[in-house]
Amino acid sequence: MDKLPHLHRRTLPPEGVAAFQSLFGDRFITSESVRIHHGTDESPYPVCPPDAVIFPCNEDEVVSVVTLCNRYKIPVTAFGIGSSLEGHVLPIQGGITLDFSQMNKVLSVDAQDFTATVQPGVIRTQLNDEIKDTGLFFPVDPGAHASLGGMAATRASGTNAVRYGTMRENVVSLRVVTAQGKVIRTASRARKSSAGYDLTHLFVGSEGTLGIIVAVTVRVYPLPEAVTAAICNFPTLQSAVESVVQVMQCGVPVARVEFMDERAVNAVNRYSKLGLKETPLLLFEFHGSETGVQEQATLVQDIAHENGGMDFQWASRPEDRTRLWTARHNSHYSGLQLRPGSRSVATDVCVPISRLAECVTQTAADLQGMPFPYTIVGHVGDGNFHVQMLIDPDSEEEWRQSEEVNHRLVHRAIGMDGTCTGEHGVGIHKIEFLKAEHGEDALELMRLVKHAYDPNNIFNPGKIISWEA
Amino acid sequence: MDKLPHLHRRTLPPEGVAAFQSLFGDRFITSESVRIHHGTDESPYPVCPPDAVIFPCNEDEVVSVVTLCNRYKIPVTAFGIGSSLEGHVLPIQGGITLDFSQMNKVLSVDAQDFTATVQPGVIRTQLNDEIKDTGLFFPVDPGAHASLGGMAATRASGTNAVRYGTMRENVVSLRVVTAQGKVIRTASRARKSSAGYDLTHLFVGSEGTLGIIVAVTVRVYPLPEAVTAAICNFPTLQSAVESVVQVMQCGVPVARVEFMDERAVNAVNRYSKLGLKETPLLLFEFHGSETGVQEQATLVQDIAHENGGMDFQWASRPEDRTRLWTARHNSHYSGLQLRPGSRSVATDVCVPISRLAECVTQTAADLQGMPFPYTIVGHVGDGNFHVQMLIDPDSEEEWRQSEEVNHRLVHRAIGMDGTCTGEHGVGIHKIEFLKAEHGEDALELMRLVKHAYDPNNIFNPGKIISWEA
Repeated sequence: MDKLPHLHRRTLPPEGVAAFQSLFGDRFITSESVRIHHGTDESPYPVCPPDAVIFPCNEDEVVSVVTLCNRYKIPVTAFGIGSSLEGHVLPIQGGITLDFSQMNKVLSVDAQDFTATVQPGVIRTQLNDEIKDTGLFFPVDPGAHASLGGMAATRASGTNAVRYGTMRENVVSLRVVTAQGKVIRTASRARKSSAGYDLTHLFVGSEGTLGIIVAVTVRVYPLPEAVTAAICNFPTLQSAVESVVQVMQCGVPVARVEFMDERAVNAVNRYSKLGLKETPLLLFEFHGSETGVQEQATLVQDIAHENGGMDFQWASRPEDRTRLWTARHNSHYSGLQLRPGSRSVATDVCVPISRLAECVTQTAADLQGMPFPYTIVGHVGDGNFHVQMLIDPDSEEEWRQSEEVNHRLVHRAIGMDGTCTGEHGVGIHKIEFLKAEHGEDALELMRLVKHAYDPNNIFNPGKIISWEA
Repeated sequence: MDKLPHLHRRTLPPEGVAAFQSLFGDRFITSESVRIHHGTDESPYPVCPPDAVIFPCNEDEVVSVVTLCNRYKIPVTAFGIGSSLEGHVLPIQGGITLDFSQMNKVLSVDAQDFTATVQPGVIRTQLNDEIKDTGLFFPVDPGAHASLGGMAATRASGTNAVRYGTMRENVVSLRVVTAQGKVIRTASRARKSSAGYDLTHLFVGSEGTLGIIVAVTVRVYPLPEAVTAAICNFPTLQSAVESVVQVMQCGVPVARVEFMDERAVNAVNRYSKLGLKETPLLLFEFHGSETGVQEQATLVQDIAHENGGMDFQWASRPEDRTRLWTARHNSHYSGLQLRPGSRSVATDVCVPISRLAECVTQTAADLQGMPFPYTIVGHVGDGNFHVQMLIDPDSEEEWRQSEEVNHRLVHRAIGMDGTCTGEHGVGIHKIEFLKAEHGEDALELMRLVKHAYDPNNIFNPGKIISWEA
């Protein structure tokens, strides 16, 4: 089994290493423990350490690192907190990892314009803590304490995307270090612009393969006047998903709507000490004015009841909501506890909402009889759901079976006009699926950009697309 | 005066012309009247006809044209209805214009998924007519009966952008013919995806310089349950704009908020036979549930009154609203009637909302004493406004003065962290401003994409960026 198929480490030229040592001294870190930490993420892949790690303190240091890497053709991989799921940050060709944890300042909050500008190492929860006195919040919330730089690079989303969008919609502008060692800004802070090619969206989701993000300007939103959350149990997976489809089709501006199957509910009950009834379940949140929230909730309750939903339970108190959403956010970790010592293989398809119920039910059928535990959770308002398979890292057979489930699921989703990844990104693990999803001619357009922006293939090489067709 | 500074027509190779004639026969049109029509837009530039025009009937014909153009290095310019304002469709290097008026079918409406897929020649009003029985609408509404292909290429917006976004947010996927004669699709119909570089956004706003759009999938929205519109007069321009800034900062989800100065009101009164009071004016529209619309309207009315707003007049009847919005949409044409025989020079800056009042008032001061009539209108909820200057096409002096006003305004906006163009695009007219806005290093990234995608510089050459730095 070759879990890291594209592994071919480059040999670092000694004069390149000497140049780094002369510039960064003992901040050019080669200790094994630091290298191992930066060769580890939340994917099922084995540890793959870089040759060295640098913690840059500012933009100029990033420019210095990239300039030297480009001169000596040394791979350079940006690292936030290492929570990516598809091997994004594993330096499979070796080289230097840039850990952005020291570049963790909120640079400005422009409350009147609903924007905030941060360094790439700022953690999403940190941003929300720092802006809460302004009455604003940042909604994008993947299931980890991810960094804003990593979230932009992965085009991440989370539970709020159905109402507030993903990083695609919420990144206003980026500062990026190019292979040539230039610092560019991708856009102004204007809400809209037709001034040339959209560099912002080209870098969002590029997973560190086109340049290194050194600042991120994001949209922030007024905290809603009223918020309420509700849990609803359903007799079947299909009835729960059908309810969501109908809610979306009625145009209800629901802020969050999350699905958990009975296995996922069991896992969060155990991990987060909750007493949720262990059936397929939907978790809703409504944002708006007092009357607006009430209107939304009544409509959704009616739709749920028509689909057999039971026990609509409300959570209007902030502490109850926080408990519920914290449990939901921790579902990756609670899933892992279903099988101590396991590694998680997480799928991430997203389909048009009209095909969602069909896709989820076919997938549940396909999972019957698998030898490993699994859960199904989903940001179902977007048509996005995850199967988390807890496999024995030493079992070739379980790895193979989980890969086959994922393979069938991805092709099922692509057949429904969907995507192999709604929010996790491509990394190493999804490369093979992009051809089926986009076609070779579209991949060639992506490759042309990669070749033009990174002629020495230094930026996170071996991710998203192969260098050659 | 060189109004078309980049004009240098290429000589068409006779064997290229012969190849087109053999393939398209008399559908390879070289008659003067057709060529003149396709050398004219709504910009102040003089007529600049292509060498020939082809009206493709399908994707395969577009592939044939592009393949021949690439082989013989003949420029090819896509043409919707010619309503662009900055010279986008003027074939300044000659060549062939592709008129998409025959490719005007709505290909599919996926009501459950809130998407519609159209050929590029479909007009925005036609799309709305064809989907109205589904209870859906397409919100992007520039001030012309523009084609969806042209709107995608220009990253257009309009009065609904404050609530529903621009073409940037509303194009889900494109089919595009590349220079190599391949047809690619930029994305699936999934609501979100992290599957590789964002080709959709790269082509949206690329003004036909990277490929030819042959199909557009857009988001459509449920018609709101309740709609109401209101007009409010203000004593001064500043008080009107300040009201908008406060409305946005309160997070009111207003669907439309348009500013017109007293000159613009006078022009629409004359052109559209309305009796609006000729002061600075805001035109609002609210979408939502009955109670939601009421809540929004009450809050906005309070804010307007605090800023000196008078005479809040309601238009709840559909026919009254249609009359008002038709008048607003026609403001470009009503402005032209202020001075029969004039050409319009329209500015298009967009700034962060916190700087909007300052930018508009400084601009109004700068316009004092100009020898030509002008109006100021704006999609002020986005921070975007237009000065329309009605100049004598034969007056060098008026052209120069209007250019200087625009130049000062663009640099004022860029100094406020804004953009030279919110929605009209770059075309020929804004090329010189992109360096100030983005910097030479960011332009170089744009240029790298252009060179990689269009090595023979056939796609609408001379637009957005110069071929060489």
